[in-house]
Amino acid sequence: MDPSTSGLAQKLAEADQSHLLHFWNELNATERADLIHDLQGMDFQEINGFFKNAMEMSSSSKHEKMDARMEPVPREVLGSVTRDRDCLKDWELTGLHSISQSKVAVLLLAGGQGTRLGVSYPKGMYDVGLPSHKTLFQIQAERILKLQQLAEQKHKIKCCIPWYIMTSGRTMESTKEFFSKHNYFGLGKDNVVFFQQGMLPAMDYKGKIILESKGKLSMAPGEPTQDLCCEPHLPQVESVRFKQVCFCISDGNGGLYRALGNQGIMDDMERRGIEFIHVYCVDNILVKVADPAFVGFCVQKGADCGAKVVEKTNPTEAVGVVCKVDGRYQVVEYSEITLATAEKRSADGRLMFNAGNVANHFFSFSFLKDIVQKYEPQLQHHVAQKKIPHVDGEGQLIKPDKPNGIKMEKFVFDIFQFAKTFVVYEVLREDEFSPLKNADSQDGKDTPTTARHSLMSLHHRWVLNAGGHFIDENGRRVPAIPSLKDGTDLPIKCEISPLVSYGGEGLEELVKGREFHPTLMIDESGVHELVKNGV
Amino acid sequence: MDPSTSGLAQKLAEADQSHLLHFWNELNATERADLIHDLQGMDFQEINGFFKNAMEMSSSSKHEKMDARMEPVPREVLGSVTRDRDCLKDWELTGLHSISQSKVAVLLLAGGQGTRLGVSYPKGMYDVGLPSHKTLFQIQAERILKLQQLAEQKHKIKCCIPWYIMTSGRTMESTKEFFSKHNYFGLGKDNVVFFQQGMLPAMDYKGKIILESKGKLSMAPGEPTQDLCCEPHLPQVESVRFKQVCFCISDGNGGLYRALGNQGIMDDMERRGIEFIHVYCVDNILVKVADPAFVGFCVQKGADCGAKVVEKTNPTEAVGVVCKVDGRYQVVEYSEITLATAEKRSADGRLMFNAGNVANHFFSFSFLKDIVQKYEPQLQHHVAQKKIPHVDGEGQLIKPDKPNGIKMEKFVFDIFQFAKTFVVYEVLREDEFSPLKNADSQDGKDTPTTARHSLMSLHHRWVLNAGGHFIDENGRRVPAIPSLKDGTDLPIKCEISPLVSYGGEGLEELVKGREFHPTLMIDESGVHELVKNGV
Repeated sequence: MDPSTSGLAQKLAEADQSHLLHFWNELNATERADLIHDLQGMDFQEINGFFKNAMEMSSSSKHEKMDARMEPVPREVLGSVTRDRDCLKDWELTGLHSISQSKVAVLLLAGGQGTRLGVSYPKGMYDVGLPSHKTLFQIQAERILKLQQLAEQKHKIKCCIPWYIMTSGRTMESTKEFFSKHNYFGLGKDNVVFFQQGMLPAMDYKGKIILESKGKLSMAPGEPTQDLCCEPHLPQVESVRFKQVCFCISDGNGGLYRALGNQGIMDDMERRGIEFIHVYCVDNILVKVADPAFVGFCVQKGADCGAKVVEKTNPTEAVGVVCKVDGRYQVVEYSEITLATAEKRSADGRLMFNAGNVANHFFSFSFLKDIVQKYEPQLQHHVAQKKIPHVDGEGQLIKPDKPNGIKMEKFVFDIFQFAKTFVVYEVLREDEFSPLKNADSQDGKDTPTTARHSLMSLHHRWVLNAGGHFIDENGRRVPAIPSLKDGTDLPIKCEISPLVSYGGEGLEELVKGREFHPTLMIDESGVHELVKNGV
Repeated sequence: MDPSTSGLAQKLAEADQSHLLHFWNELNATERADLIHDLQGMDFQEINGFFKNAMEMSSSSKHEKMDARMEPVPREVLGSVTRDRDCLKDWELTGLHSISQSKVAVLLLAGGQGTRLGVSYPKGMYDVGLPSHKTLFQIQAERILKLQQLAEQKHKIKCCIPWYIMTSGRTMESTKEFFSKHNYFGLGKDNVVFFQQGMLPAMDYKGKIILESKGKLSMAPGEPTQDLCCEPHLPQVESVRFKQVCFCISDGNGGLYRALGNQGIMDDMERRGIEFIHVYCVDNILVKVADPAFVGFCVQKGADCGAKVVEKTNPTEAVGVVCKVDGRYQVVEYSEITLATAEKRSADGRLMFNAGNVANHFFSFSFLKDIVQKYEPQLQHHVAQKKIPHVDGEGQLIKPDKPNGIKMEKFVFDIFQFAKTFVVYEVLREDEFSPLKNADSQDGKDTPTTARHSLMSLHHRWVLNAGGHFIDENGRRVPAIPSLKDGTDLPIKCEISPLVSYGGEGLEELVKGREFHPTLMIDESGVHELVKNGV
């Protein structure tokens, strides 16, 4: 399988990518085989087309502010856990009913590696240091299990919430192994479906695919690398993107939406009779997987597309906001607008653009099908400039200190614009959103520590609201607010297995009127008080 | 001056505090003189009375929850910078007018040492590491200066905002020296009036005054010590207090209110024709000293007492909330109520009890006079249990690992209950509240770093809103949101001297349409761009 005979060389020449074979003679058999394999999987004409369009779009939209074109989310399409409390129970019942009918599926975006966490394995396999030392994957799996049980108990009928897990080329194998090693955490093997997002090679500004070593293309990973996220000097349009990028699916071939089609996921959903899909990112330790209230709200509103949001309260918070632009819904990043617009307030005193995107979406099956079949090709790639390590003409590895190439990507929420009935569902940050992005560090945000603390603080509140109390070593009641020791929040150590409670329900019989010493651990085997500083 | 001859011994015996002379024979002349001096300044009968009452009150109120008795602040007494934007300008004009009439004074609570910051000098002398390296005292002094100028320019009349600074026995001398060394930061020497809060000795549970060394009484400092603030196992009523304690004036003789009377401060105010007083704590780097809008709002409402608050958005946030209890206003700490009450929400989705106390108060002179003359004696001491280092019978220093004594204190806001017309003024946390309490540490809250960042972020927004822009070393515009590098917020480095702008006003002519490289520094001498990593 010599490239020249196989016709690959010609294919590359036609695409003006012949440099990819520059080191061919220096490669050993394996390296050659791998390179051939990578190259054969690629449609260079298409990739070049993507590059052309992406660069045009990025330059054209550069510096264009959208202040004038933005409208906030109208109240009538908004459901709020704080402002529509009377409806919550009803929404939840509707959602539970759909779940009991096995009409609800969960779609997990797990393509990213824990690069910024300092680990090379998939983020979902990360242990944030809870008393149980459960990984993100296990926590989410157990929430699905519990939700199935709740729906079955309520409706006396067996049901299933299939879990579609999108990995990337780099995380597929390790993810699959991890799940099979843990026996799919009790979920049926057949109900956990893995598929793989597409990858695009990184390209230099001339459109040449970048070699990260003599025999290996630089492929855009499923998650922003540190280069990207630390990049302080990107021109407007790119800097826009890098903050959204944690919600993005790096892709060259339509990413999620194309993968759903060309890997038979839509067919699988159709066969199972799935009508509603909850899409979310792996890194949110508080994520309410297949949240029945969210699903029920969207179903009752007859929505084909819905976004879960948390209220943005500080104008300069680095979060994209859901809003209307030219009459169509999309996510706008703060840096796309002026500070004045970000600081605009409604009569009620809230920020006018306060629907903070948390990468939790609802899609109807038919909407998703339309996207995959009709609209996906219309999705434009966004361009992110990056510092991409590469080999020079002599094969020396170069680590650039300023952007030397681009990564092309599409975002999950790029499809909002196609929704006929779009709704927004506002939830409480402290209850539902605590993403894991960075390794622990001083003043660290979104770290293993913050993730662990937010989960334990939520479970602590569950226990208090169920009538339980915490006491210290002297038998005194501990105030519900963690005392501020040297300004460091030290929440009560308390963890409740999702197999015991999905959202705080069913704890009264276990804790009401009882006093506990932290660390408190509640799981299938009962209520345990672990030794102090057990964590 | 032998105690036995001086009659002091008998005084002590009558008060059952003779143990204070236990080591008399081991003291040298100086130690004896100091001890005598301390003891002669004390009214032991009164102190014993305080102890008796405080202990009774603390035991009686223990564990008593006030959920049922609480009412939120009614909308009609609330002024909000986000919900009453149309009134802001008018309130500010009213406040500026009062200032121009020299009717407004500022009262600073600066009794605390920087114990938790790891320094022994007064907190106001701390440098949080701004480009200018100004101390908290200087920042506040310059805001007063600027405000005087603004009022003078507006009303073409010379005016003065006298600054009353309450220190404690331990901080008086160093504070005075610091001010005179810096020539009162341009404020007239006569317009900066220092006075001293009272101190009470710490006592054991039997009411015996505690000796911290053979010849020295343990005096309660003006600020919570680390012991107190780290104390994780205080019974309910004390743990209630220790979170408020940062707003407290440690005192045995009425603290602030008695000091105002017995040190001639009220007379001084009367002589100057002061009608309105703004009281605040030294540790808030964003404090709007004599905030004209706040003052103007209170004046227009005919309030005798007002509290500035920030919205509490998270139920478990460790902040006291202003509310009505049994029809009277007070500050209730979260741990005095159940989680259920803390989580209660109004129809608009906000927390029902969301008026977070930030130790920024407005008093009319006549109200303050009534307090000092009539109500002060009615104020009850609160009890805080503490670990108090002390000498045992052999003179050995003991450092207890659990509370061994109490500190008695009253709080500034204990007088809210006496107000006839009480109002609440809600402001934005990111604009006005960032207290300095702790040394820098991982996940640190209220540290020099957070204080520095919040000030620079505010000034950054001032520049953007005045039409200025920031560019990086490559000449590209920097997005207004600081990029999240490793999850650490790195705000644009930008500092504007209070002498140039009190609240963001007057910057257009300096920055509009211009591009700046951080670090940007704007002061009386002009606009400067300092070298990068200058901070």
